[in-house]
Amino acid sequence: MKIVIIGGVAGGASAAARARRLNEDAEITVFERGPYPSFANCGLPYYVGGKIEARKKLLVAPIELLQKRHRLDVRVLCEVTSIDREAKQVSVHNLATGERYEKPYDKLILATGAASVQPSIPGGDGDRILGLRDLLDADRLHKLATSGAKRAVMLGAGFIGIEVAENLVRRNIDVTIVELADQILPPWDQEMVSPLQQHLSEKGIDLRLKDSIQQFEEDGDGLKVSLKSGDTLKADFAVVSVGVRPESRLAKAAGLECSDRGGVLTNSSMQTSDRDIYAVGDVVEVDDFVTKNQALIPLAGPANRQGRIAADHLSERSSAYRGTQGTSIVGFFDRTIAMTGQSEKGLRRQAIDYEKIYVHPADHAGYYPGANGLTLKLLFNPKTGLVLGAQCVGSTGIDKRIDVIAMAIQAGMTVFDLEEVELCYAPQFGSAKDPVNMAGFVAAGVVRGDHPVIHAKELAKSKMEPNSDLILDVRTPAEFDAGSIPGAMNIPVDELRERLNELPSGRNITVYCKVGMRGYLATRILLQNEFSAHNLSGGFTTWQHVVGNGKN
Amino acid sequence: MKIVIIGGVAGGASAAARARRLNEDAEITVFERGPYPSFANCGLPYYVGGKIEARKKLLVAPIELLQKRHRLDVRVLCEVTSIDREAKQVSVHNLATGERYEKPYDKLILATGAASVQPSIPGGDGDRILGLRDLLDADRLHKLATSGAKRAVMLGAGFIGIEVAENLVRRNIDVTIVELADQILPPWDQEMVSPLQQHLSEKGIDLRLKDSIQQFEEDGDGLKVSLKSGDTLKADFAVVSVGVRPESRLAKAAGLECSDRGGVLTNSSMQTSDRDIYAVGDVVEVDDFVTKNQALIPLAGPANRQGRIAADHLSERSSAYRGTQGTSIVGFFDRTIAMTGQSEKGLRRQAIDYEKIYVHPADHAGYYPGANGLTLKLLFNPKTGLVLGAQCVGSTGIDKRIDVIAMAIQAGMTVFDLEEVELCYAPQFGSAKDPVNMAGFVAAGVVRGDHPVIHAKELAKSKMEPNSDLILDVRTPAEFDAGSIPGAMNIPVDELRERLNELPSGRNITVYCKVGMRGYLATRILLQNEFSAHNLSGGFTTWQHVVGNGKN
Repeated sequence: MKIVIIGGVAGGASAAARARRLNEDAEITVFERGPYPSFANCGLPYYVGGKIEARKKLLVAPIELLQKRHRLDVRVLCEVTSIDREAKQVSVHNLATGERYEKPYDKLILATGAASVQPSIPGGDGDRILGLRDLLDADRLHKLATSGAKRAVMLGAGFIGIEVAENLVRRNIDVTIVELADQILPPWDQEMVSPLQQHLSEKGIDLRLKDSIQQFEEDGDGLKVSLKSGDTLKADFAVVSVGVRPESRLAKAAGLECSDRGGVLTNSSMQTSDRDIYAVGDVVEVDDFVTKNQALIPLAGPANRQGRIAADHLSERSSAYRGTQGTSIVGFFDRTIAMTGQSEKGLRRQAIDYEKIYVHPADHAGYYPGANGLTLKLLFNPKTGLVLGAQCVGSTGIDKRIDVIAMAIQAGMTVFDLEEVELCYAPQFGSAKDPVNMAGFVAAGVVRGDHPVIHAKELAKSKMEPNSDLILDVRTPAEFDAGSIPGAMNIPVDELRERLNELPSGRNITVYCKVGMRGYLATRILLQNEFSAHNLSGGFTTWQHVVGNGKN
Repeated sequence: MKIVIIGGVAGGASAAARARRLNEDAEITVFERGPYPSFANCGLPYYVGGKIEARKKLLVAPIELLQKRHRLDVRVLCEVTSIDREAKQVSVHNLATGERYEKPYDKLILATGAASVQPSIPGGDGDRILGLRDLLDADRLHKLATSGAKRAVMLGAGFIGIEVAENLVRRNIDVTIVELADQILPPWDQEMVSPLQQHLSEKGIDLRLKDSIQQFEEDGDGLKVSLKSGDTLKADFAVVSVGVRPESRLAKAAGLECSDRGGVLTNSSMQTSDRDIYAVGDVVEVDDFVTKNQALIPLAGPANRQGRIAADHLSERSSAYRGTQGTSIVGFFDRTIAMTGQSEKGLRRQAIDYEKIYVHPADHAGYYPGANGLTLKLLFNPKTGLVLGAQCVGSTGIDKRIDVIAMAIQAGMTVFDLEEVELCYAPQFGSAKDPVNMAGFVAAGVVRGDHPVIHAKELAKSKMEPNSDLILDVRTPAEFDAGSIPGAMNIPVDELRERLNELPSGRNITVYCKVGMRGYLATRILLQNEFSAHNLSGGFTTWQHVVGNGKN
């Protein structure tokens, strides 16, 4: 069997190695347009910043290894220029020698990945304006970052944008990030990234939201960057990273079915509309695991698994891709944010019914040194409690909680299941009631109707209306005085039972505390005393993340 | 409703708080024999060692808080001496005043916990021989550890034993641990704790396995400790921690059904044989989540959840305990070990069919600085692939992997599911193929029959037999020369295809490498070339953990 794989990173490399293990006799050829197969894409920003010192560390599977160990015919600097489905062969252009030839296949795997979106900005093709998609980009950026540069401008505050920003700061370069959206990490929920934006500012990064770059101009040894807002920035170089699109040109030219967004369509065995051609990785449309809707979710883990599945299937083994959950994580400076499943934004966009809650527990037992607070947002079906998504932000223990909830989603668990799950507990690692259990308790209380909640945005809106809720702050007077929701009255939860007579009857009450726990207890007290009450989910902490005012 | 709770820590405290939230009007009384309700049991060793500096941090829910916030009638230093099920009342002895009285109940919750097993050792009742079950014990131990003590002897190498040992070393005290079993952490699988035993030795702890204490004698200001092996140790004090047993005296005296081991029997709502009496926490027999057999599993998380469930049920809500998985973790010095589900020992003891595999990946991408190796052992049903248990040992990222697998067990997932799960990946947090995926890949290969494995103990045994397997080391010559399995021949995997003619036909081949990955590839090559081959699971690394010889 002749297996040809186009693209030698992540999905392509996984497919090749798996295909070899299952087919010792197959002829497996991997064409890689770039000079390196299987480099550590996700490590590039850290090489630029010097966190990863040795460039060779990024070459995770050197070509010699692939050839010797897996007997793969890896051809780098070889671009496949077209696919002839009729003749079952691809046309190859050797970029090093100029040679052109045809290569026949029995089974073809497209792992062409995604390309950077290139915004059309006057002056944007200058030498000092870079992207960061491959090792050559990293080499260029590394050189600039270590050649005395003092100032850089990043366009785009996605994963790569903020990872690069962190790494340029590591090189003592002043960084300005320009982002068109009104938040960093645009696909994430805004209130979850707001603590991060503050952290970026504390680290000296100049964050320009709702802005864009109108023009780059050469300016002596550097750049003059003109923003839409009217400001002008000076910089030694700029990095543009505003997203990716599927690199599906070959597939389209070959007449393979693609989505309107350009993603190659496959079945669950990763077969395209031509059953002898598979497609894997960032180039394909996947099923979103939660919604079952099609989505473009460029992530390394899914790409690797898809490569494996394609190799299984062409080796006549049943193997099906289950869809992508979108589990992802980004760390910068002292903060980490991670998510799995749907975001609230995504659920709203797809008009899927959901409820949400916020908890702000510590990552491990508060009595053990080094506990850091975290914020966990859980999205779930308001009737069944099915877990739809989660986001978590903080310093430590973030990856663990999202991995646990990723498992819950994978297993189709509900918030009632999260109440019961049994996780590791010793004081340096967690709590007897882990943050995941806590989120389960709160969400299950909401679904059961024991714990009516209101959200900060609703509250901010409803406050303006006539006959609005009484807002009851159940924290201590000292906490109340240090910052509170305008118009709130203060009765500490520990005094509430004795002071119920101070509350007006017949008026809805919104209760809140710092994180929602005392508010929950107060809500239970009020409900059992014939008041109509609900609790502000996540308390004043979430209020501040959402509404942004008040003191910290 | 009158709710009486006996025991104010973990399960009792959780039940009380939950009962209050659901029953604002209930009269809830908590009797606690000791001076403190709800102290941080799991923090005691760290207070002794000074890692937790302030004693008050251990009082996680001070009595005033429980009274004011939850309106609980908490009576400390009050021992319940008997239960009159007919009259539905308990007899109380106030240890502070000597007063005795009866307290009626509608619903009673037993949360009496577990007591230390007291081995009968001559001289064992001296002042310098301590346990560590409560805050008063911790106070005594803290005082000894900070009063110039130089040498201590620990009897018992369970969780508490090794946590205390670490903390005494933190106080610059020389520690000897004496343990009857042939390993530390006796319920765990031996090869998983063997790297820890080495670590303890590196940290200067004198570990005496397969030994016991025969006698304590006063010796000036210290102790003379005579061991069964004949050795005599001098010490300033000794700590005895050889396990716990259910504190079910009250329950038995009241005629409640108990197991032979002394655990109180309950249904899934935590009701005892008297439906108005619940029991929760370390005092009860639980269903093991995996085997559905009864077990005594004293852990804080399950105790808390059981308390919650009892409170739910007596508030007429349906709520059922699902059984205990035994998810647990212990960290000491620079190492962590965690487990969930069944151990191999447990499976063997219960004659449950299983298979196992070992992987030794890094906790995060190897190209990012700070990656630490870990060892993950996965136990599963050899036919269905159902995950039965896992153990993980290493430095970092251990809790996360066991939490993820705890979720898999909770959800009834198989090793095929572990192949597909989608976890967080950025280079500082994991790998595109997480260690959990890796374990899934290997285990699924075994279940599918693609990847026949043999285990170190079998190999060590079969080596001695006539017509034994050819042992083929597929590592590099340099690795081979630095230590190998006696009798092995060496053909590096990268040369194997060219050197197949060197292998005798008709003889079974056991392949191994360092961790099992090259061995897997070599096994695939051999199988597809008509050889009979299997791979040593976990490679030479597991061989060393099991058999112990060879160089590192």
